[in-house]
Amino acid sequence: MSAVVERAAYVHPAALVEGAIGAGTRVWAFAHVMRDAVVGRDCNICDHAFIESGARVGDGVTVKNGAMIWEGVTIGDGVFVGPGVAFTNDLTPRSARLAGLNRSHDGWLTPTMVQEGASIGGGAVIVAGVTIGAYALVAAGAVVTRDVPPHALVKGNPARRSGWVCRCGAKLHIASGNTICADCGATYIISDEGVVAWQRP
Amino acid sequence: MSAVVERAAYVHPAALVEGAIGAGTRVWAFAHVMRDAVVGRDCNICDHAFIESGARVGDGVTVKNGAMIWEGVTIGDGVFVGPGVAFTNDLTPRSARLAGLNRSHDGWLTPTMVQEGASIGGGAVIVAGVTIGAYALVAAGAVVTRDVPPHALVKGNPARRSGWVCRCGAKLHIASGNTICADCGATYIISDEGVVAWQRP
Amino acid sequence: MSAVVERAAYVHPAALVEGAIGAGTRVWAFAHVMRDAVVGRDCNICDHAFIESGARVGDGVTVKNGAMIWEGVTIGDGVFVGPGVAFTNDLTPRSARLAGLNRSHDGWLTPTMVQEGASIGGGAVIVAGVTIGAYALVAAGAVVTRDVPPHALVKGNPARRSGWVCRCGAKLHIASGNTICADCGATYIISDEGVVAWQRP
Repeated sequence: MSAVVERAAYVHPAALVEGAIGAGTRVWAFAHVMRDAVVGRDCNICDHAFIESGARVGDGVTVKNGAMIWEGVTIGDGVFVGPGVAFTNDLTPRSARLAGLNRSHDGWLTPTMVQEGASIGGGAVIVAGVTIGAYALVAAGAVVTRDVPPHALVKGNPARRSGWVCRCGAKLHIASGNTICADCGATYIISDEGVVAWQRP
Repeated sequence: MSAVVERAAYVHPAALVEGAIGAGTRVWAFAHVMRDAVVGRDCNICDHAFIESGARVGDGVTVKNGAMIWEGVTIGDGVFVGPGVAFTNDLTPRSARLAGLNRSHDGWLTPTMVQEGASIGGGAVIVAGVTIGAYALVAAGAVVTRDVPPHALVKGNPARRSGWVCRCGAKLHIASGNTICADCGATYIISDEGVVAWQRP
Repeated sequence: MSAVVERAAYVHPAALVEGAIGAGTRVWAFAHVMRDAVVGRDCNICDHAFIESGARVGDGVTVKNGAMIWEGVTIGDGVFVGPGVAFTNDLTPRSARLAGLNRSHDGWLTPTMVQEGASIGGGAVIVAGVTIGAYALVAAGAVVTRDVPPHALVKGNPARRSGWVCRCGAKLHIASGNTICADCGATYIISDEGVVAWQRP
């Protein structure tokens, strides 16, 4: 429970914080931030969350209850990681004591990136090696097996794109072209490849 | 660990109970019942479960390990919430520090209802806004995205109805008409819309 | 926190170990091994994992964070249980206080077996009653509803077979016939029913 804690961070008495957490970050009961994990400022690390040595979490990130972030996973600023979200970091996991085969352990770690402002719904599973683009929305229960473009909404197992979402989180009601978010008024230009441009309301 | 605890409740020394729990309710290790959560009588709140301020849990409810029940979620009497079940309460989650857009936070909370006697299998994900009907059975690993009728069995991602179940939990072996539960002997009349009538054995 | 612990086991101060754990086994923060659970040697039981009374875990097993292993579940030697994996042990779960119907509780417990060297990816759900064969690989997020043959790779909800994997974990790039693992050099003979023979590199 030793910790590198800047001013104004909060650590619940039943949490374990051994890594570095930024100013204004709160860590709640039964959560565990391991040594050599890095968590930015103004984050909310909820009950039973786990952040492993080597994981990197940006500023203003919400890690909901029971979510697990491993070595090799990088979480950008302002990301929402929903309850029970399971990241992975090994595409061919075997228990360490297995076998005695020739398998090299070099290169077992497959990195994953979640870009700024993205949201990952509750119970989603993120297979190692993907990039989840900025402001994307992974639906609750989705199993993400390949890259998610910025602003994409993906759902299902395996997760497939079913639309685009605004920075504010609301669904945009077109597949391509120019549109205005009905919720916040931001404007977007969308092509077949994704969001080309946007403007604040 | 202060608590409003009636007679005969049990709180494990490693649990945190800050809300109200009814007589006969047991709360196990590393579980957390927050302040302003309400949990009824004779419930079993298992290890690592989390019940948030504002959540309401009826009498005789089983909340298995690691299940998470949020503000806005109401759990009826006699419900079974399986291990690792993730409820949600926000259809467009974004981390609070995001953006500075016009998005209003009014109305972000989308309520969910689980009616009397329903069961939710392990690892299921419940998208905010649905009602799970009385005595329904959500299969393990299902992702529930719309209402589940009473007595329905639903499974898959997204969850779809694949039959009907008895109050006792056993599958009823007809799609519609009159039937007797092979397990407990209760009788049912089922129409295309669901269970019309039933009688104890 | 009393425990039957052999030499060289390690129990984190925030773990609860009431059952028997073998030499060299490590149990990490907020994990709980219940009384009458049996865990073998050289296992790694990670944060927030739960092993219930009556569960049996072999030697050299990795149980990643938040995984839950119940009475009726048997885990063979060298198995990898990924983060957040939810086993189940009751096909028709109802909260204990329900009903007062005729339903007998005899036979509610449906056993599950995971054979030597198998791996179960993060967030997978295992429906009670299945056998997961030796060296099989259950993909992250899969929902396993029927038996998995030895060396099979299964994925999706419900999980279906999409290939074969080597003892070392790598995918074998044929559906049937003779092949050499590109990663470790082991050789296999595969028929329509699965792996018939193999040889170390």
